[in-house]
Amino acid sequence: MAATKAYAAQTAQSPMAPWSLDRREPTPHDVEIDILYCGVCHSDLHTVRNEWGGTVYPAVPGHEIVGRVTKVGDHVKRFKVGDLAAVGCLVDSCRECANCKQGLEQYCLVGMVGTYNGKDKYNGGVTYGGYSKQIVVTEDFVLTVSGKQPLEGIAPLLCAGITTYSPLRYWKVGKGTKVGVLGLGGLGHMGVKLAASFGAEVTMLSHSPSKEADAKRLGAHNFVLTKDESQVAKMNGYFDFILDTVSAEHDYNLYLNLLGTNGTMVCVGAPPTPAQIPAFNLIFGRRSIGGSLIGGIPETQEMLDYCAANNIVSDVEVIDIKDINEAYERMLKGDVKYRFVIDMATL
Amino acid sequence: MAATKAYAAQTAQSPMAPWSLDRREPTPHDVEIDILYCGVCHSDLHTVRNEWGGTVYPAVPGHEIVGRVTKVGDHVKRFKVGDLAAVGCLVDSCRECANCKQGLEQYCLVGMVGTYNGKDKYNGGVTYGGYSKQIVVTEDFVLTVSGKQPLEGIAPLLCAGITTYSPLRYWKVGKGTKVGVLGLGGLGHMGVKLAASFGAEVTMLSHSPSKEADAKRLGAHNFVLTKDESQVAKMNGYFDFILDTVSAEHDYNLYLNLLGTNGTMVCVGAPPTPAQIPAFNLIFGRRSIGGSLIGGIPETQEMLDYCAANNIVSDVEVIDIKDINEAYERMLKGDVKYRFVIDMATL
Repeated sequence: MAATKAYAAQTAQSPMAPWSLDRREPTPHDVEIDILYCGVCHSDLHTVRNEWGGTVYPAVPGHEIVGRVTKVGDHVKRFKVGDLAAVGCLVDSCRECANCKQGLEQYCLVGMVGTYNGKDKYNGGVTYGGYSKQIVVTEDFVLTVSGKQPLEGIAPLLCAGITTYSPLRYWKVGKGTKVGVLGLGGLGHMGVKLAASFGAEVTMLSHSPSKEADAKRLGAHNFVLTKDESQVAKMNGYFDFILDTVSAEHDYNLYLNLLGTNGTMVCVGAPPTPAQIPAFNLIFGRRSIGGSLIGGIPETQEMLDYCAANNIVSDVEVIDIKDINEAYERMLKGDVKYRFVIDMATL
Repeated sequence: MAATKAYAAQTAQSPMAPWSLDRREPTPHDVEIDILYCGVCHSDLHTVRNEWGGTVYPAVPGHEIVGRVTKVGDHVKRFKVGDLAAVGCLVDSCRECANCKQGLEQYCLVGMVGTYNGKDKYNGGVTYGGYSKQIVVTEDFVLTVSGKQPLEGIAPLLCAGITTYSPLRYWKVGKGTKVGVLGLGGLGHMGVKLAASFGAEVTMLSHSPSKEADAKRLGAHNFVLTKDESQVAKMNGYFDFILDTVSAEHDYNLYLNLLGTNGTMVCVGAPPTPAQIPAFNLIFGRRSIGGSLIGGIPETQEMLDYCAANNIVSDVEVIDIKDINEAYERMLKGDVKYRFVIDMATL
């Protein structure tokens, strides 16, 4: 066991503050990584404040991790000391269920092991995430990273990137698809970049008029101001697919109405209250609403490789770890373009 | 214009009672049909009691119509006097929009013309349905019927049949699919018969233990009593597809949990209150919930031909039209196996 510097919340009411945790000695299948950058996801905040329930304290969040390999176990094949490496939202799963065998570890039927607040198979207790100097992860859940792009821009791909990439691929968004992306935050800005790169016609649906220019810079072809009823009404029946990235309460029916016949809206954000949907809003137009959770390991690697090949990174604001509490407050106000990333050298 | 005997509701509070309406003289493209049988759909009752709003009185419901051709216009090609013919839930549409051109007239972007309480293009006012001696319908919306099966069993195929056939086909239910059918009424019993005939493994999900034997006779392989929590819990994650035929209020989440990864639940019944669905119930397992509305004219013909070829009809209880008000009360109690059909000779 090696002591590692970290930032943790000690209770749901505590600010994030320095802490020290123990990482396991790498087993023969493990990769030890020196963390260089860690993205700041809204899930981090939900967890440290126990907004979803079930948080075990001290809590060390962070699941958008990019770093450099410092040690490998004897059986590790794909990594050697000095390689770049990345870790996303999960660090293990049962590996034996039908979903794991298909590379859908995020839907592991036994239960995936989250990168933080997951059940630690090795040390007991819970897993600790990327707001720390080092992490030790079994090789099969470590991803390879190209050295050609800025590492701070790669970090958010591990959650914001795969969370949008996976549903766009699963629902076959591409040339000829009219896509609406609802919400321009960490997820939404990746949704716009990826959908546009897949050849789709992309419309940004946002309640903030100030985001129009930026949405278009990111690749959106159209912009609809969602608080302007007449702009929204003009798009009734327009979209084949809507990617709903909003975690705040909102009226799903307003956006279901924008779907054309056979259209699908997919939620990747989870508001605190249930969606209220009259069945008729699905029946007329044969519409569907679905959900999607991050992505499996093979698809996450595919996404990283795709982004490297197509020069896609996240737009980030790099912060020192001492500023994380302020960053959370700014994130709550939507005051970030479009993802905070912690420079772990500041820990 | 020809006076035609009918049964109508004069107000939302009135019982169904004899009335007389005028059918148009057949135009060159029209088919005049002597109605032999008309099925009794729950939508009939919703309409005569104005439960969906917008009912124009007098209201003559009925959209599961089988009869014999008595007159055809000069340009009619597919029918001659004496042929059997059927009319379902729609008697016209714009015929020019993208959906109509694909044979998806039920999703006509201008608005389909319902068989009753639709906007009558010829006579003005609203359309009158099949609780009448005769109907005149433009040829393109008249279906052909095989004479090999009992006509009273064919009538409900025009709504209950196509409403279940269409989503089962659209979502590719067949050999290897594990299907749950929720609710054993007019729609549910057709859902079981059709899904089983497509080669799927069919499980009846019903709150009534008395329906098990009948569900199995109709083709279900398994039966789950939905008010027994332990029986339901055993099926968590089991189904690829659930056809939800229930129009009464129910907890959608209970059934969403029965879907496996990538599973879809499709609603063909519309309860009076919205479905309440936490986004996490869709996100975990990449599940979807969708809706489906009857079927277009080509698919309705395909369904009738399929049922004729596979010897599928509806299980019906034939009634005299004077007993329609009592039939409505029994329908409300679920006391029908599984569809009332009016013998129009009794009018």
